[in-house]
Amino acid sequence: MEISREGNALHLKVKESIIQLIKSGEYKPNTQLPTEAEFCKKYNVSRTTVRTALQQLAVEGYVYRKQGKGTFVSNNKVKQILTTTVEQFSEQVAMQGKKPAIKVLSLEVIQADPFLAEAFDINENDPVNKLVRIRYVNEEPLQYEIAFLPWNKTPGLNKEACETSLYKFLESHFHLKVKKTVEHLDLILADQTISNQLNIDVGSPCFSLETHAYLEDGTAIEYSKTIYRGDLVNFVIERNY
Amino acid sequence: MEISREGNALHLKVKESIIQLIKSGEYKPNTQLPTEAEFCKKYNVSRTTVRTALQQLAVEGYVYRKQGKGTFVSNNKVKQILTTTVEQFSEQVAMQGKKPAIKVLSLEVIQADPFLAEAFDINENDPVNKLVRIRYVNEEPLQYEIAFLPWNKTPGLNKEACETSLYKFLESHFHLKVKKTVEHLDLILADQTISNQLNIDVGSPCFSLETHAYLEDGTAIEYSKTIYRGDLVNFVIERNY
Repeated sequence: MEISREGNALHLKVKESIIQLIKSGEYKPNTQLPTEAEFCKKYNVSRTTVRTALQQLAVEGYVYRKQGKGTFVSNNKVKQILTTTVEQFSEQVAMQGKKPAIKVLSLEVIQADPFLAEAFDINENDPVNKLVRIRYVNEEPLQYEIAFLPWNKTPGLNKEACETSLYKFLESHFHLKVKKTVEHLDLILADQTISNQLNIDVGSPCFSLETHAYLEDGTAIEYSKTIYRGDLVNFVIERNY
Repeated sequence: MEISREGNALHLKVKESIIQLIKSGEYKPNTQLPTEAEFCKKYNVSRTTVRTALQQLAVEGYVYRKQGKGTFVSNNKVKQILTTTVEQFSEQVAMQGKKPAIKVLSLEVIQADPFLAEAFDINENDPVNKLVRIRYVNEEPLQYEIAFLPWNKTPGLNKEACETSLYKFLESHFHLKVKKTVEHLDLILADQTISNQLNIDVGSPCFSLETHAYLEDGTAIEYSKTIYRGDLVNFVIERNY
């Protein structure tokens, strides 16, 4: 059933076997895995083979490492539900029995560059709110987000409001109701900034989600770019036909 | 505006600059980029720096390499639209001015393992159709897909039918209408099988989309796992609130 079971490289066999042991519950979340030496013996393979398998398992989010302590089994990934009835981030995370938090890194007013001017149908150099946030789950940084909102529609946006739901605040404070979003989901590699902010290695694969949000009358109200840790997140999409 | 512009490593500056030149149309799709030596001179950086930048651009799908010929600018990524009004793969691709194709690698009847038995509410060892396909765009392999369908609902499924739309065939031939799908989108690294099938390096980041499809009465009719090349695909999600 596992596609990769058909792979023939030795480290893939080891990797698949460990995945099965995690899925079957033999290795339980947050417990320590056997050492590299123990895996070498168990599978009768080299240290390099075991290390490659463990590295891939870490990138794919099955295990995580603690400096000087060894390798542990991950909790389940955080599911991001992409449907038309979207619960807030905090509610989604809480429903999965995890602890959510949002931290505002900065909120400033910048001048629209040509891209933002076109996105919001404003003039170049018009003021735009730029909001940078990190979202955490169980104290681990999960997503790094830069959002832009035209200042003329959201004057006096304040930091505290942005530590909860931005869309709810837009509605309660500015009477702006988001009616439609168009999102693009891409795969990217972490650069230095993302690496620092999300506490992952430079080059780690991540999801990049670009969002354009619109009001009832079609006015663009937000443009954002969110980077999700690929090892911690997966997306759930429900469709009805 | 580009998040990675804030990065400080030299290769990221080079990478960002090349991305801007591609986006602005200075470097056009399918034309050859300057050589590594030319980039070294242009940016006054080392060969290693240029190589790292170009490697990342290739993984992220901005450029591609031709053996012995150099580096070329990619076409736009193939958009996969994830909304409730889904056009068929072929139609989506054709609408983007690209040439689609579907190839059936195998179609066989296997025995349900415990996972499939539970998914389809059948007994273990009951017959299940296993369908392996590759989808191409402009002759490039784009996605590798393994689908399972309970044999009792799809007896005599045949290869030719699977080279077009499976869901349309289910409807026209078996009177089975898919009403709902639940999908999980993950990030994985290519193993040897995926590498061979999709013509990418082992370890390349890919999207993995797991789908459960249901009929009107809630019966599970299909389980599939599709691996998409991360350098060639992005997903578009439209939501109305």
